[in-house]
Amino acid sequence: MKVLVINTGSSSIKYEFFAMDAEQRLAGGIVEKIGEGASAVTHEKILENGDVLKLEEQGLIPDHEHGLKRVVELLRHPEYGVVKDKSEIQAVGHRIVHGGDKLTETMVIDDKVIEALRETVPLAPLHNPGCILGIEVARAVFTNALHVAVFDTAFHRTIPPYAFMYALPWDMYKKHKVRKYGFHGTSHAYVAEQAARCLGKKPEEINLITIHLGNGGSMAAVQAGKCVDTTMGMTPLAGLVMGTRCGDIDPAVMFYLGKRLGMNLRELDILLNKESGLKGLCGTNDMRELLKKKRTGDFHASLALEMYAYRIKKYIGAYMAVMGSLDAIVFTAGVGENCAEVRSLACQGMEAFGISMDNERNCSSSRDLRRISTDDSKVKILVAPTNEELKIAQETQRKIKIRQKNH
Amino acid sequence: MKVLVINTGSSSIKYEFFAMDAEQRLAGGIVEKIGEGASAVTHEKILENGDVLKLEEQGLIPDHEHGLKRVVELLRHPEYGVVKDKSEIQAVGHRIVHGGDKLTETMVIDDKVIEALRETVPLAPLHNPGCILGIEVARAVFTNALHVAVFDTAFHRTIPPYAFMYALPWDMYKKHKVRKYGFHGTSHAYVAEQAARCLGKKPEEINLITIHLGNGGSMAAVQAGKCVDTTMGMTPLAGLVMGTRCGDIDPAVMFYLGKRLGMNLRELDILLNKESGLKGLCGTNDMRELLKKKRTGDFHASLALEMYAYRIKKYIGAYMAVMGSLDAIVFTAGVGENCAEVRSLACQGMEAFGISMDNERNCSSSRDLRRISTDDSKVKILVAPTNEELKIAQETQRKIKIRQKNH
Repeated sequence: MKVLVINTGSSSIKYEFFAMDAEQRLAGGIVEKIGEGASAVTHEKILENGDVLKLEEQGLIPDHEHGLKRVVELLRHPEYGVVKDKSEIQAVGHRIVHGGDKLTETMVIDDKVIEALRETVPLAPLHNPGCILGIEVARAVFTNALHVAVFDTAFHRTIPPYAFMYALPWDMYKKHKVRKYGFHGTSHAYVAEQAARCLGKKPEEINLITIHLGNGGSMAAVQAGKCVDTTMGMTPLAGLVMGTRCGDIDPAVMFYLGKRLGMNLRELDILLNKESGLKGLCGTNDMRELLKKKRTGDFHASLALEMYAYRIKKYIGAYMAVMGSLDAIVFTAGVGENCAEVRSLACQGMEAFGISMDNERNCSSSRDLRRISTDDSKVKILVAPTNEELKIAQETQRKIKIRQKNH
Repeated sequence: MKVLVINTGSSSIKYEFFAMDAEQRLAGGIVEKIGEGASAVTHEKILENGDVLKLEEQGLIPDHEHGLKRVVELLRHPEYGVVKDKSEIQAVGHRIVHGGDKLTETMVIDDKVIEALRETVPLAPLHNPGCILGIEVARAVFTNALHVAVFDTAFHRTIPPYAFMYALPWDMYKKHKVRKYGFHGTSHAYVAEQAARCLGKKPEEINLITIHLGNGGSMAAVQAGKCVDTTMGMTPLAGLVMGTRCGDIDPAVMFYLGKRLGMNLRELDILLNKESGLKGLCGTNDMRELLKKKRTGDFHASLALEMYAYRIKKYIGAYMAVMGSLDAIVFTAGVGENCAEVRSLACQGMEAFGISMDNERNCSSSRDLRRISTDDSKVKILVAPTNEELKIAQETQRKIKIRQKNH
């Protein structure tokens, strides 16, 4: 089976095309700045020898429909393409940020699913409208394909009520669906499986803490293969210190800023989501740049890094306590895979709990799934490259096979 | 030395009077509903045999000055009093909720200290104006006494920057003093000392987690006698699930409620501080009532209790990780001292980390400082009755002795 994975934002379409027999990436790319005048398309075809043939285009792409049609043309292109006809694309997997309280597992998309998705828009007003648009356009373009929705929130559906509820008046949950949902689920699920394989265990035999550190960041407590808690909340603002998001904070800080600076909720939203985190503390949300600054003795960059790692360490402890025992800590995504300094700071000083980092392994420049703990570390520390698109393709294939069996 | 301890609220004065040679409580009481018409005074004198002689009065007390003068009359009263003349009261210790970023340790009060206290008012607009009023009135009444300010925030002054900073734009800290301060410091300090004594160790030899659970609740990580982190934040709203406060929450929940329900910051302040926590979840902020409800099968009460304990457990784990090792967990204050069910739920399932509760000890009805862990529990679990007023009196005496030595 060949699966096209689509990740639609408000002004972009990311796509990856996989041959699932060997889980091989055939092509992929991104359409950016849709409707903004100077749209850009970047397309890659993976050649048989592994080399990448790359095409970059500029020009107006007025809307998502034109964007996706251009993707189809590129996938069918005699030189840059990988299929003869679009009918070869029989399955499309859609990444959906927020499934709300009803869409809690991978689903074959029909009108009912789209209706339910519309109901989630108030929960994810910035993300889900783009996702819905992407589905509608893709259904119109790939009329014969099966479309599957894979939710960033789905992996967190097993979090128990005492962990997903906020201590707010009951109606806030019952009527207004205020609760922890969690995000990055596809990535946490993917690296948890990879880690189990690496440890030679079944997922249900081990307890993991997965740590996804990109520009956004979140952690998950994965007990016997099931997520039991995560750091993000109702929205992706909660939890860790992130690129531009503050993560955990005394909510009353907002009341103070409202009174003292006359800020309203809209301004506070921008402040906490866009101007805080590493960027707010030291002027950059790029970890590599932060580390450069730190090396020149920049106090703000040093403090930002310490805060970033300290927050991770606190959650490692919290999730250890919640699960009662821990087999491995798994770092993934941009910063998690590439930043030895963050991993080292986050894990140091916990030898008494069987967490022992091997500094040489931690600093190796390998890009593979690897162990960076010492040989005698009771808790293994792993670096596992994430692949959310492949996981969406796997989920899409899995769901379609189940459906075919049942028909 | 005899020390009068005063805790002044916006419409109340609590007082305790100690003979410090034997740290003996001589008298104490409360003046309530000052200026509200039906004011009430409750006064207790401790007799030599330990019995309590109690007096209750009702009637208008128009302001704090009249309230404190009534306290003086009662302390000098031929039957209910404990001094012959007010000149016997040579030291007055004042409980101050928020010391801000400058008043970080116990201080003998002079005009400068009062000036600095005025600067903290924006940080604690509900509490500190009452405290300042209390000092002014008491200085006018006890003109010859030394007045000492003891701050709820002072014990947390040793928290390092990476733990007290929020990941907000730098100016929020620099210009607007937005940071974690922490509260209940007097109680955490008191029970940490008690715990060290109980374990036969010096404070600097052990790492403790102190858990103060009253209607408000907070935890502190006390490493080698110094606080290194705490759950409350810039205000007492953050951290644990409390009687009416939500504690930790995704801050973006407020943006959602603002948009969906049209709530403004003032309304959200009331919602999160007064209508949330246990009360919001199950209708009562009284733990005894909650437990009664739970026993009748009330689903909301059960969930509220689970959430309450789960939040504590997460912070036990977090602070274990932060300190690298743990010698004892110390429960204190109303719920912490009296509710075996909360202690049991919060500590269960952590045997792998050397935390092992003895159920029989936990359920004993003793009111003394006691150990409730099993004999072989690596981490001791203690219940330590708190005594914030005595601690304030101790601090007051300590500060005055230092001053006398230096003069």
